[in-house]
Amino acid sequence: MRHSIATVSLSGMLREKLQAAAAAHFDGVEIFENDLLQFPGTPAEVRRICEDLGLRIDMFQPFRDFDGTTPAQVARSLERAERKFDVMQELGTELILVCSNVQPDALGDVDQLAGQFHQLAEHAGRRGMRIAYEALAWGSKIKLWSQAWSVVERVNHPHMGLALDSFHTLSLRDDPSGIARLPGEKIFFVQLADAPWVNTDVLTHSRHYRCFPGQGEMEVTKFTAAVIESGYSGPLSLEIFNDEFRSAPARANAVDARRSLLWLEDQVRQSRAKDAPPCKAPLFAPPPAPVLTGWAFVEFAVDPAAGGRLAAWLKATGFHRIGHHRSKKVDLYGQGEVRIIVNLEEDSFARSHFEQHGTSACAVALATPDVAGALARAEALLCPRVNGRVGQNELTIPAVRAPDGSLLYFCEAPQGGRYAFEADFVMDESALHGGVLGDTARFDHLVQAVPAGQVEPWVLFHRAALGLAPERNVVMHDPYGVIRSREIESTDREVRVSITVSERDNTSVSRAVSSFRGAGVQQIAIAVTDLVATARALKASGALLLPVPANYYDDLLARYDIDAGLLAAMRELGILYDREADGGEFLHLYLTPFDDRFHFELVERRRGYAGYGAPNAPSRLAAMAQWRQAQQ
Amino acid sequence: MRHSIATVSLSGMLREKLQAAAAAHFDGVEIFENDLLQFPGTPAEVRRICEDLGLRIDMFQPFRDFDGTTPAQVARSLERAERKFDVMQELGTELILVCSNVQPDALGDVDQLAGQFHQLAEHAGRRGMRIAYEALAWGSKIKLWSQAWSVVERVNHPHMGLALDSFHTLSLRDDPSGIARLPGEKIFFVQLADAPWVNTDVLTHSRHYRCFPGQGEMEVTKFTAAVIESGYSGPLSLEIFNDEFRSAPARANAVDARRSLLWLEDQVRQSRAKDAPPCKAPLFAPPPAPVLTGWAFVEFAVDPAAGGRLAAWLKATGFHRIGHHRSKKVDLYGQGEVRIIVNLEEDSFARSHFEQHGTSACAVALATPDVAGALARAEALLCPRVNGRVGQNELTIPAVRAPDGSLLYFCEAPQGGRYAFEADFVMDESALHGGVLGDTARFDHLVQAVPAGQVEPWVLFHRAALGLAPERNVVMHDPYGVIRSREIESTDREVRVSITVSERDNTSVSRAVSSFRGAGVQQIAIAVTDLVATARALKASGALLLPVPANYYDDLLARYDIDAGLLAAMRELGILYDREADGGEFLHLYLTPFDDRFHFELVERRRGYAGYGAPNAPSRLAAMAQWRQAQQ
Repeated sequence: MRHSIATVSLSGMLREKLQAAAAAHFDGVEIFENDLLQFPGTPAEVRRICEDLGLRIDMFQPFRDFDGTTPAQVARSLERAERKFDVMQELGTELILVCSNVQPDALGDVDQLAGQFHQLAEHAGRRGMRIAYEALAWGSKIKLWSQAWSVVERVNHPHMGLALDSFHTLSLRDDPSGIARLPGEKIFFVQLADAPWVNTDVLTHSRHYRCFPGQGEMEVTKFTAAVIESGYSGPLSLEIFNDEFRSAPARANAVDARRSLLWLEDQVRQSRAKDAPPCKAPLFAPPPAPVLTGWAFVEFAVDPAAGGRLAAWLKATGFHRIGHHRSKKVDLYGQGEVRIIVNLEEDSFARSHFEQHGTSACAVALATPDVAGALARAEALLCPRVNGRVGQNELTIPAVRAPDGSLLYFCEAPQGGRYAFEADFVMDESALHGGVLGDTARFDHLVQAVPAGQVEPWVLFHRAALGLAPERNVVMHDPYGVIRSREIESTDREVRVSITVSERDNTSVSRAVSSFRGAGVQQIAIAVTDLVATARALKASGALLLPVPANYYDDLLARYDIDAGLLAAMRELGILYDREADGGEFLHLYLTPFDDRFHFELVERRRGYAGYGAPNAPSRLAAMAQWRQAQQ
Repeated sequence: MRHSIATVSLSGMLREKLQAAAAAHFDGVEIFENDLLQFPGTPAEVRRICEDLGLRIDMFQPFRDFDGTTPAQVARSLERAERKFDVMQELGTELILVCSNVQPDALGDVDQLAGQFHQLAEHAGRRGMRIAYEALAWGSKIKLWSQAWSVVERVNHPHMGLALDSFHTLSLRDDPSGIARLPGEKIFFVQLADAPWVNTDVLTHSRHYRCFPGQGEMEVTKFTAAVIESGYSGPLSLEIFNDEFRSAPARANAVDARRSLLWLEDQVRQSRAKDAPPCKAPLFAPPPAPVLTGWAFVEFAVDPAAGGRLAAWLKATGFHRIGHHRSKKVDLYGQGEVRIIVNLEEDSFARSHFEQHGTSACAVALATPDVAGALARAEALLCPRVNGRVGQNELTIPAVRAPDGSLLYFCEAPQGGRYAFEADFVMDESALHGGVLGDTARFDHLVQAVPAGQVEPWVLFHRAALGLAPERNVVMHDPYGVIRSREIESTDREVRVSITVSERDNTSVSRAVSSFRGAGVQQIAIAVTDLVATARALKASGALLLPVPANYYDDLLARYDIDAGLLAAMRELGILYDREADGGEFLHLYLTPFDDRFHFELVERRRGYAGYGAPNAPSRLAAMAQWRQAQQ
């Protein structure tokens, strides 16, 4: 289908917005009036810029509070409309969005409204313009799409139709399914927005929290499916009011915008009945989301000095070097199915990543039985493919670029504990087994620390390119500020990742982000089968387990019936504990971090515990801060 | 009265929190359990730290979900309470906060509750402990102070009393006045918090938006007055859950906390009937808030190079040098009642301000008929007085330090257009009159740009020290992000200031703040009597008026009936226009800024226009961005 975007959705001055929309291959734009008012040139110049960029101006918007209680008011509104038709004529667009009246004296009577809108449609017709009437969720009287439709139906004029906006319907939890039975040609325009569910009034919700489809929690697919069933074949457009987007780089955000529409079309296509008639405009059909069997490795970028420190830290954490690359300065560490790559190559992507971000994870890898399919899906969803070698000396595992510029590799799932990519390495078979984490060790989840405003792009990346689903939003208290995280998982929970963000400067997340201009992987959680035994072995080998205060365990004792032996062991080893209502138990501990940058967590899930130990976050974050202060 | 603070209100590890509370001269603290759990030492060590700091531990909190539907549940709760009594014994405190149950199976029957709480009171009594029972606004059954009181009254046990928290009562818009009729000795503890009114659920409101009394919008004075009338003589304590405070520097925030309680006591004292009986604990009685007649001057800190540029910029804006200091390198600019001081002295506060912040306003001055009284008030409200000379070569006008370290001077109001402080200057009488802004020019308002998290401290500073009142909260859209502002005014509107903040990096506010490590005055608005004439004269003199796009005026024409001549003049001169519902009109224009730092606005208020032209903010901010980009 054609894709459009309202200029209000993107940051910057009008020209920058239009350039960003064109660069992301949008077909058209809605010109938001404020953007035009601020443009230091004529509407005709805007038209020329759009023509040069290959953008159609699909609509001019918004026109507010049209209807009135007195003939003088209506006459004034019609006069105001004529002035806007003048502007539209110069802009070269013939569609205007008229939203329902929010004034205290707004009309609610359909006949009265239809009478006044018929006049407006007549005026529009004489100018070759068309009216798209939209029910604002906070309109004084007209709030629902069905009410707006009653007016449009009664007006019954070729220059008057409906504008639909998913947010206005979904935010009121109104049912969109009846839209499927509308005559598609009377739907003049469709705007799409998602949003998280936030406990606030609908106007505040709309003005600050909208986001692109797939980034929020609303049933945008269901809404859009109903629109498609009506026979609507116009553009799908995005109208997003979002405080973050107002400051987000317009180019990257416009790509996210397009990605969201492609994802949405794919979702709608999949949701359609097998015997549904073909759509008037065909829906986007990318390769299916890949089956993912888990995280395969994390690759660290270092230089020789940092490489020595990192190797020592990995060894203290129980990791041994199990291989070195046949031709490159790349070391492989591993236990069980967990692999850590340490990339020391000069003139490589890793080295330039190191130069920009310091010692950091420059790449992560996911295992899949269908590497080619996974790549094709990601590319179709606008993730740039990195072809084999970025620099001269790269691993040749195929990859795409993640939102922060790091790499996401796809590799084949391990067979008998061995990965296909290990063929590139000279392996030390003796080091491969008997590690302290055990032969069943595997990645449980990764935690990525991202700068403020970057959670939504990461959510959409994981959802659209990888088919993962965003789950819980969690608020955590670092001693020095609030940290928020969004947990993202595959349906079978084989792949889990948590995206964390902190608005203020002194938390562990913001230190990692600000010291290194973006952070990436901050926590690597590894699942083991017997955490107490593993922790004992680690401690015996001299690993630095993060100490947990005795008061924590006194409180555990007050809260839970816990086996005295287990409690004593947890107290001795710094193991944290959580229990879910259905009896699932979570034991986890943390190793001391590498700089302020990243650290390992070891976890043991009992009886299907589903979470990430969030109730222990304050204790863990305080223990980290305590440890850090003690080092200084 | 005694002042206490819950450790959750301050940022950092427990020891830092306690040190900050002691440094701000709090008498006591509430130990928030999570802070204790994270403390790497015993409760006895916490007790010793508090003793060393001169802090009493007034309460341990919270104990949640005590009551139960089965005898086994109650027995488990009593056992849990005994474990907490153990901790309290070590801490050396005898009061525990028990908040109302939020579980689905919480009890609502007063008799049943009283029976279970009687058991708890008995347990407490045997340990020498006391129970303070608090109704959480989101408790499953017990939500109101009056319900909690019913339980306490029924229990009728010397070891069971009430805990009151202003937020729980005021957030539900419940009436606190009945608290005045409670027996004061049965109120065991009082917590105070203010908050802005936010459209969200009460739990979210409480967890993220609480602030110190005077920083928000709730009737904390009315609540506290009722508490005082009951005869309560225990501590006034602050329990603040606030996302900003979790990352705010603990020391400065603790001073704000104390300031809020001093302000609140003063407010309560003033609100009491003249014939009211004396309070058990006397209420704080500082000097009254000063009468303020307006802003008097803004002082800029420069070095010689910047001084030359600033002088040229002031001249281009129509300002002439009207005097130079008798003994210092300080120049005075002025027109009407507006004064601008340019401080070039080496080895001065201004110079060190310049070295830290670049060319910036290092001080502002307020005019008052009672300089000594204004100073005494500010000092009593914990604003550090700056005695005469900060460095060697300062103006000797008395001042206090503002929240950002800049100075706030108090000086006498002008007589016949002349200020007393001008006696320090050799004045050029000829330059004093006939300036382009006219002899009636005066400061209309100032706009301060502050870093994220600093709005609340500034609001409290203005409210407590100066007696100003916080008014509207405004959201403005810069092309590169959201800007929020809080307008603060004297009752007679002679003094107006707006505090602005931007969370993200690219707005005009955040550029000013981040480039200069704090910004201070960003906009100086001057009221003139005939803006069109003034603008014409300025333009003729070569001043750079900020251009406004023609599209803005085409839209004005569509929206308002405006005199064609006025519209043409506004279009020619870049004058923006706003009209209030009651007919008040606002004409205003902007001059091009000095660097990204500060700029002048000229305003004309007609028929009592009360606002600041907020509807024009997007146009003004876009025009600024446009101008800035054109310079590059």
